[in-house]
Amino acid sequence: MIVILKENPNKTQVDSLMAWLESKGIEIHTSVGEHQTVLGLVGDTSKLDMDLLLALDIVEDVKRIQEPYKNANRKFHPDDTVIDVGGVKIGGGNLTLIAGPCSVENEEQIIAVAQAVKASGAQILRGGAFKPRTSPYSFQGLHGEGIRLLKLAREVTGLPIVTELMDASHLPLFEDVDIIQVGARNMQNFELLKLLGHIDKPILLKRGLANTYEELLMSAEYIMAGGNQKVILCERGIRTFETYTRNTLDVSAVPVLKKLSHLPVIIDPSHSAGKWELVDPLSCAAVAAGADGLIIEVHNDPAHALCDGPQSLKPAVFDALAQKLRAIHEVVSAQK
Amino acid sequence: MIVILKENPNKTQVDSLMAWLESKGIEIHTSVGEHQTVLGLVGDTSKLDMDLLLALDIVEDVKRIQEPYKNANRKFHPDDTVIDVGGVKIGGGNLTLIAGPCSVENEEQIIAVAQAVKASGAQILRGGAFKPRTSPYSFQGLHGEGIRLLKLAREVTGLPIVTELMDASHLPLFEDVDIIQVGARNMQNFELLKLLGHIDKPILLKRGLANTYEELLMSAEYIMAGGNQKVILCERGIRTFETYTRNTLDVSAVPVLKKLSHLPVIIDPSHSAGKWELVDPLSCAAVAAGADGLIIEVHNDPAHALCDGPQSLKPAVFDALAQKLRAIHEVVSAQK
Amino acid sequence: MIVILKENPNKTQVDSLMAWLESKGIEIHTSVGEHQTVLGLVGDTSKLDMDLLLALDIVEDVKRIQEPYKNANRKFHPDDTVIDVGGVKIGGGNLTLIAGPCSVENEEQIIAVAQAVKASGAQILRGGAFKPRTSPYSFQGLHGEGIRLLKLAREVTGLPIVTELMDASHLPLFEDVDIIQVGARNMQNFELLKLLGHIDKPILLKRGLANTYEELLMSAEYIMAGGNQKVILCERGIRTFETYTRNTLDVSAVPVLKKLSHLPVIIDPSHSAGKWELVDPLSCAAVAAGADGLIIEVHNDPAHALCDGPQSLKPAVFDALAQKLRAIHEVVSAQK
Amino acid sequence: MIVILKENPNKTQVDSLMAWLESKGIEIHTSVGEHQTVLGLVGDTSKLDMDLLLALDIVEDVKRIQEPYKNANRKFHPDDTVIDVGGVKIGGGNLTLIAGPCSVENEEQIIAVAQAVKASGAQILRGGAFKPRTSPYSFQGLHGEGIRLLKLAREVTGLPIVTELMDASHLPLFEDVDIIQVGARNMQNFELLKLLGHIDKPILLKRGLANTYEELLMSAEYIMAGGNQKVILCERGIRTFETYTRNTLDVSAVPVLKKLSHLPVIIDPSHSAGKWELVDPLSCAAVAAGADGLIIEVHNDPAHALCDGPQSLKPAVFDALAQKLRAIHEVVSAQK
Repeated sequence: MIVILKENPNKTQVDSLMAWLESKGIEIHTSVGEHQTVLGLVGDTSKLDMDLLLALDIVEDVKRIQEPYKNANRKFHPDDTVIDVGGVKIGGGNLTLIAGPCSVENEEQIIAVAQAVKASGAQILRGGAFKPRTSPYSFQGLHGEGIRLLKLAREVTGLPIVTELMDASHLPLFEDVDIIQVGARNMQNFELLKLLGHIDKPILLKRGLANTYEELLMSAEYIMAGGNQKVILCERGIRTFETYTRNTLDVSAVPVLKKLSHLPVIIDPSHSAGKWELVDPLSCAAVAAGADGLIIEVHNDPAHALCDGPQSLKPAVFDALAQKLRAIHEVVSAQK
Repeated sequence: MIVILKENPNKTQVDSLMAWLESKGIEIHTSVGEHQTVLGLVGDTSKLDMDLLLALDIVEDVKRIQEPYKNANRKFHPDDTVIDVGGVKIGGGNLTLIAGPCSVENEEQIIAVAQAVKASGAQILRGGAFKPRTSPYSFQGLHGEGIRLLKLAREVTGLPIVTELMDASHLPLFEDVDIIQVGARNMQNFELLKLLGHIDKPILLKRGLANTYEELLMSAEYIMAGGNQKVILCERGIRTFETYTRNTLDVSAVPVLKKLSHLPVIIDPSHSAGKWELVDPLSCAAVAAGADGLIIEVHNDPAHALCDGPQSLKPAVFDALAQKLRAIHEVVSAQK
Repeated sequence: MIVILKENPNKTQVDSLMAWLESKGIEIHTSVGEHQTVLGLVGDTSKLDMDLLLALDIVEDVKRIQEPYKNANRKFHPDDTVIDVGGVKIGGGNLTLIAGPCSVENEEQIIAVAQAVKASGAQILRGGAFKPRTSPYSFQGLHGEGIRLLKLAREVTGLPIVTELMDASHLPLFEDVDIIQVGARNMQNFELLKLLGHIDKPILLKRGLANTYEELLMSAEYIMAGGNQKVILCERGIRTFETYTRNTLDVSAVPVLKKLSHLPVIIDPSHSAGKWELVDPLSCAAVAAGADGLIIEVHNDPAHALCDGPQSLKPAVFDALAQKLRAIHEVVSAQK
Repeated sequence: MIVILKENPNKTQVDSLMAWLESKGIEIHTSVGEHQTVLGLVGDTSKLDMDLLLALDIVEDVKRIQEPYKNANRKFHPDDTVIDVGGVKIGGGNLTLIAGPCSVENEEQIIAVAQAVKASGAQILRGGAFKPRTSPYSFQGLHGEGIRLLKLAREVTGLPIVTELMDASHLPLFEDVDIIQVGARNMQNFELLKLLGHIDKPILLKRGLANTYEELLMSAEYIMAGGNQKVILCERGIRTFETYTRNTLDVSAVPVLKKLSHLPVIIDPSHSAGKWELVDPLSCAAVAAGADGLIIEVHNDPAHALCDGPQSLKPAVFDALAQKLRAIHEVVSAQK
């Protein structure tokens, strides 16, 4: 950590700061420049509160050099984390396709979609039972009944299931779910993250729509600090000035997150774009960029999906896409 | 609502869409243009799901004309909502100053600050007991003990108190709190909002850092749809490309939200800027723009604040600011 | 175009608006709703100034339905534009690789790089002679001498050349350049665009760092309205809140621009990321998403590049990448 | 400047870097940490190219500590710059009101508006003769004739005039203009800035819609490096995700720019909002935040303004606003 002092700082305050830092086991390297004195702090600065330092009258700026996350940091865990979900491996060079409808609607629908996506090579079934909706007047999912139907579809197809948890109080319903999803709007719901740190189940953590890579990794850190190391990072589009697409898929997130962290990184192309025609090119782009997997909305009748309809693919379209994705993955893996 | 059809749409599908809309009590006005046919939907379109319509093969675009919020909408409630908190009135032309430390640290601190801000004219005391922090390793507040100390300070000074609720499970601790704050990161924690719709207490709802005015009003709508009409909207800075300030205060939020809604609108200048030198000019700007109040961090020893230190003011600085704010408020009110 | 009137508008003003619109040959379809009256304008609305309409006291909002660009619009030109540059075809299913150093530095460098990228399959040589730099104190290119060296490299290798024009007054120097590049910062330098509309040379038009797809197409329209139809659109990263990457590559730009327009769309992965390790994954992503080509910085000694060094590849790295890109292009083209 | 080396860097490369830096007169302070070695560079680092350093294999990151601008930097010029325009002083505690129509349309209009705004206390007349428009099909100003009419209005009222220059080739027409405006879209038209550095006339430099404070100051530096020290900075709204307003006025720009620089800072509330109802609250906010002035659109018949109509005020509205602004300025100045 670098602490930049103001011009002509009060000497007593500087001494007291340095004494305090040394008492924390921090070694200090001082560089005196023409206009500024810079303190280089060496040692474990992850417990130092940048804001506290910034608050001091004598401090002009503070810059962090070490990343503030440890469990999620590739520097301390050079090997890829590979998460096993009922035999399906996520991370470590595998390409995992997760597919299914936005919302679970009824038995017929979820089983038909699950069978279709399985036939096209999807390894995990997605489906919303609790749906975060901007409007209190919109359909919000079948709740417990939705989870029951997902489990039924798992029974029929053998596909593990992933579904979103919106509130701690619903956790008992998720006991038998294979992967718990934390939605973008809850990425910094820290109480929920802490809770998920104490269970033994993979967590699919979506990036918030205006959250940085570092904040995403800090949210993963919340879960991992509690003991649960099975976190799957998911980029699903960020909010920018462009309004033609619902969100802007940040495909750079794939190589960057994989460089900074050992956790698997997947992409949700359906929510990024908000338009089903973009799901194909964005999925291809994600796999070409090195994503460990995709989570794609597939609906047997997109026009009647109860929510998020516009970004769903029909099973036949998904089938063609899945083939193309595997071919791209092969090219990218072979030439690595 | 306006539905724009694709060029040469399938006639059967158009007929079936129109029949379905009419079955919902919607009247349809059709304009046939050279390249596009446009359907104007008249009636109560707030229950129509834009996404559903967008999902149809024959639809190119859908534009909403009526706002999707009702309880929060000034069109249906032309008069300002005025919220009474133990005799302090928020909204309706009043200027309400809410002040206090970022975090409650100990009895001495909270009482000293409460007395100081009261002496300077603050009408409500703020103080964090549960603190949302990006890092799991940072100080997260005194929790229940913090709330106990806030109530003590209220007893001593008579100031009503406002503090942030981060999780539904903590609600019992907040029973005797005057205003419950929902933080920016929880603005779309819909389960929490629904819960707060069923209690009888003012809610200070902060805008999420990348949420639009409409989304903020939809979150207010979540609370109001449950029955609780006492919502105070709070702008606290949005995330932009500029990194010099922590967030960019969107001062336009004041006149826009007051035009769209009847709810009171206050500004948090401390979190917007992340630098205490900016609290003064941003507070003045907010009042000049017509804000109903401010929520400002004041600390008796900013340099040792346990969190968010950099944006705290010292009591003497707050005192001078409060005088200036009242003078600006007078100018702005007089000439309205 | 849809004009939404305010509640209870002045009848005389409405009549006068409608008369004025009809005098412009616009047909009006009126829908009277409970709270709002909506006018649907049918006819050639591209000459109507939205701002003028918005300025009227009786108007609440105006929404455009037809795109405001014509020459660049795929609706009116369904077939892909294919631009021929000395035998190299850009657009129409071809994959065009443009490569070369950020800045032309000296004869040895530009010829070595040109030969290397040609050997790896690049079809066009890039190199900056005039460099837009944020700081007046940074190296700004070799200017005329840079262009002379580029032409020399073309002579040696046969590769057509592309280089950036920053000011109309430099145009004479560009007479013998094959493609003129307009940089992101000049995307809305309308006087420059008009000038380029009157010359007969392909223009590589980069998207401004905070410009929408529509604005990019309107800038293309400026050139095309002058008569020059040979415009190549280039996405090079947009400015967002994320600071880890220099810009955020918006890979969705590829399918969206190709849907809206018939012009070729290429990607600049070097400037988007600002880090050379990201050039490989972003290039793969771009081709997978359907880009017509890439413009990549390659330097024989990246560590000593005089500008924009961090995003340059070494020739050997470019060679491996080019192979991978052709393989991905094959997968994507085959399965279309 | 701080250079952070990668873990286990090649020793020869480090030595060669250090030797090169020392040859540039830079003193180096090395801090060796557990995972990273940090070099603190002391001396005149403004000529060091960050990108060059970042390009080196052994470098992980580079952080600037000194600002890269000198002429515009308050550290080296602590006193406010006060610019005198025909007796009107801009900066240094004065409140300067610049007003006038978006576009000059005809003699009657510009003289009527000039007289009206003068009567309300405006000290400088604005009016567009060359108008940057997104669409090639929109009205683009009266050009030379517009400037002639502005000069006529100056003759009649005595108000100095400011108008926008879009291209170097038009400069001869601006010889007798009092202040030359550089629009937001040209903020990084570096060739234009260089040219304006060599003339002796105040330049009103608008912030680009996605440019940082530092970039704005670097653009001022381009002008100042040429010798022209009379630069007026202007915030006019930035592009964010919010679409209700045309741009988001960044009112923090006022205190921040005035802290970083000695140049005057004014606000353009008309273009920020794009809605005339917001001009009043945003103008008040700007003055309360400490702005040195405002540039406001006033039109005698807003509904017929040929461009940018929606953000124009009528003269009577401007008159009331000007009174309020002076009262706020008095409050803010008195209590400084």
